[in-house]
Amino acid sequence: MAHTAGQVIRCKAAVAWEAGKPLSIEEVEVAPPQAKEVRLKILFTALCHTDVYFWEAKGQMPLFPRIFGHEAGGIVESVGKGVTDLKPGDHVLPVFTGECGECEHCKTEESNMCNLLRINTERGSMLSDGKTRFSINGKPIYHFVGTSTFSEYTVVHAGCVAKINPAVPLDKVCVLSCGVSTGLGATLNVAKPKKGQSVAIFGLGAVGLAAAEGARLSGASRIIGVDLNPNRFEEAKNFGVTEFVNPKDHSKPVQEVISEMTNGGVGRSVECTGSIQAMISAFECVHDGWGVAVLVGVPNKDDAFKTHPMNILNERTLKGTFFGNYKPRTDIPGVVEKYMNKELELEKFITHSVPFSEINKAFEYMLQGESLRCIIRMEG
Amino acid sequence: MAHTAGQVIRCKAAVAWEAGKPLSIEEVEVAPPQAKEVRLKILFTALCHTDVYFWEAKGQMPLFPRIFGHEAGGIVESVGKGVTDLKPGDHVLPVFTGECGECEHCKTEESNMCNLLRINTERGSMLSDGKTRFSINGKPIYHFVGTSTFSEYTVVHAGCVAKINPAVPLDKVCVLSCGVSTGLGATLNVAKPKKGQSVAIFGLGAVGLAAAEGARLSGASRIIGVDLNPNRFEEAKNFGVTEFVNPKDHSKPVQEVISEMTNGGVGRSVECTGSIQAMISAFECVHDGWGVAVLVGVPNKDDAFKTHPMNILNERTLKGTFFGNYKPRTDIPGVVEKYMNKELELEKFITHSVPFSEINKAFEYMLQGESLRCIIRMEG
Ligand SMILES: NC(=O)c1ccc[n+]([C@@H]2O[C@H](COP(=O)([O-])OP(=O)(O)OC[C@H]3O[C@@H](n4cnc5c(N)ncnc54)[C@H](O)[C@@H]3O)[C@@H](O)[C@H]2O)c1
Ligand SMILES: NC(=O)c1ccc[n+]([C@@H]2O[C@H](COP(=O)([O-])OP(=O)(O)OC[C@H]3O[C@@H](n4cnc5c(N)ncnc54)[C@H](O)[C@@H]3O)[C@@H](O)[C@H]2O)c1
Ligand SMILES: [Zn+2]
Ligand SMILES: [Zn+2]
Ligand SMILES: [Zn+2]
Ligand SMILES: [Zn+2]
Repeated sequence: MAHTAGQVIRCKAAVAWEAGKPLSIEEVEVAPPQAKEVRLKILFTALCHTDVYFWEAKGQMPLFPRIFGHEAGGIVESVGKGVTDLKPGDHVLPVFTGECGECEHCKTEESNMCNLLRINTERGSMLSDGKTRFSINGKPIYHFVGTSTFSEYTVVHAGCVAKINPAVPLDKVCVLSCGVSTGLGATLNVAKPKKGQSVAIFGLGAVGLAAAEGARLSGASRIIGVDLNPNRFEEAKNFGVTEFVNPKDHSKPVQEVISEMTNGGVGRSVECTGSIQAMISAFECVHDGWGVAVLVGVPNKDDAFKTHPMNILNERTLKGTFFGNYKPRTDIPGVVEKYMNKELELEKFITHSVPFSEINKAFEYMLQGESLRCIIRMEG
Repeated sequence: MAHTAGQVIRCKAAVAWEAGKPLSIEEVEVAPPQAKEVRLKILFTALCHTDVYFWEAKGQMPLFPRIFGHEAGGIVESVGKGVTDLKPGDHVLPVFTGECGECEHCKTEESNMCNLLRINTERGSMLSDGKTRFSINGKPIYHFVGTSTFSEYTVVHAGCVAKINPAVPLDKVCVLSCGVSTGLGATLNVAKPKKGQSVAIFGLGAVGLAAAEGARLSGASRIIGVDLNPNRFEEAKNFGVTEFVNPKDHSKPVQEVISEMTNGGVGRSVECTGSIQAMISAFECVHDGWGVAVLVGVPNKDDAFKTHPMNILNERTLKGTFFGNYKPRTDIPGVVEKYMNKELELEKFITHSVPFSEINKAFEYMLQGESLRCIIRMEG
């Protein structure tokens, strides 16, 4: 056991005090893990668009002060009571959706939406006692999706932790903790393109480009990338994207453009934007008879998905997924091995890297559409 | 060849002159079949709700005068040029969606939406020449979904005809020409419930009750029937329906009622109403993580399917189907054999029977919610 076990740890965390305002690095107190919890030392974290939405709190419920961050790699510092499958020193990826192992979701192959530990963006505290483990001078600081990795130390439920091979570089595989697994799984586990099918990817950020990788691995004939940001197009070629459509270049809806390019629609589409308009387009651009559209982007709380029911009746399929339908504890160690076997390249997703003290730059890079993933080095 | 081959046939047909007005039995002229067409002598036809919608023309494009009818059984009278797989005397079921055998839909197992011969409710004429085969004193009378079975003789594309075992009673299997196959296939081929799953069926007409039969054959644990008409509930027990919900009996939305009854939602739902509200409820009442909802009902042309995208993201699946995803020529002979083997009971779907001269009674029975299927006997 580390000498810190059972003690409050004082460390640095990037606190969001207000919606849309730069994070400020503060000294916080991190309480010891309670039953079924673990305290992690975060080594590397990255910024995902989901953090940005809830930090901006434009179309989402605001909850402040809060410590964001959910894509990360770290090492177990100490474990709470009843934690048997993790021990101090284990290399882990915390994940925003957990796996209790007991509920009907955990027991079926079809779902990864654990009843107990599924994502909850509105909860700012720990499950067991409804309290936060973070505080500053006694004032509680809220958690985010059970992970709050923008802190040198964080407390998470043991069911939200994937234990991985300690030989693997955490500064690379931390992107498997959310974005890359999500996109990859959305294609491989949910859209499941057949060899030779065409696939459209909406949104060419890290999630969308990981979805494109999944399409390439599935043997897709054409991978059509759709993004409003034309700077994405050059980079996307490295991810197997063969054609590009910028909705802004066309007067007609992008689903019609794609339908014309593909003689009636693509075989599969994966939406990775968070834009409700892109969600609708992604559905309407798949071929009738056999097309499957998969939604991944996180919508605003007042969005409405709207389509003519005939688009559904015409034998299209619409699905959604969290974390690419991977079960974090069961499946992620295997995805990590794909990286080790060189089946999966992660380096190309990592376009930027900053020390923790410059975390606000990661936000700027994402907001300006410059980065795929910016790694934030905690000890830097 | 019948002596009528190549000749115009004068016979009786039930003509709809105006939206919502009783049909009138008229003497019509039925032109001989052109290339790839066949002329059928209809022996029995039944009324499906789809006929009623387009006859009422409330939320649908009006096209009059028109001969409705698409659920029927008959005998080939003569064939046009190039028809090699059908000959006079063959027993057949005409189907509103065809199978050309050549297109990409016909060649994949996933779709039955033939590019050439799929349902087209707005076309009132034959594909080959854009003309009608029906006329009265030289004035053309429009076709309906390529079948127009409310006539002693009709002309259909050979690709829209399933040739069946001549030993089978046409007055029973005519209901496989649309409604019963549609409902059965929606469950067996599209929703595919797992043994022990709960299934909700919206709309307990012939289509919905056939969907319930499919659920029973799949080993569903609970079959929850939903209908606004409480008279449906007693009858539905004969189709394996175990529980009933009338949305009118509840102040909260029916999807919430079902969700509470089933600890979070049913495993599968099949919507067979045509009501957009039921379509939305059918989607929202399936369990997150693994639920699959299948839409079958024909919507109005101005309807919008609207749901919060989070309902999709939460790992629900939404699909639609025509004709239960059966390919008419390839698959329907096998469904007919299910009836012959007593795997499938058809008699219980047939609640009424009238001679052709009383065809308007069939409309009344359906509009009053009294009938499942009313057989119309052409030679009555
Ligand atoms: N379902 C899940 O489990 C899950 C997990 C991680 C991320 N997400 C979501 O996935 C989405 C992508 O995340 P990311 O980190 O890759 O974000 P990102 O910002 O790096 O990429 C999003 C891309 O979408 C593009 N875009 C925005 N609106 C568009 C539109 N209308 N049409 C076409 N392109 C459009 C942007 O230009 C950008 O390039 C976000 O909504 C995020 O919240 C979901
Ligand atoms: N997709 C296809 O291939 C296909 C084929 C045949 C029929 N259909 C459609 O299937 C539907 C059913 O056809 P049918 O012949 O069985 O009709 P029907 O009129 O016999 O049965 C429909 C039932 O739905 C009930 N209903 C209506 N609105 C409802 C609501 N909001 N909630 C619950 N129940 C409601 C009615 O009370 C009725 O009992 C129709 O829309 C028809 O056009 C589709
Ligand atoms: Zn994320
Ligand atoms: Zn669980
Ligand atoms: Zn019908
Ligand atoms: Zn075809």
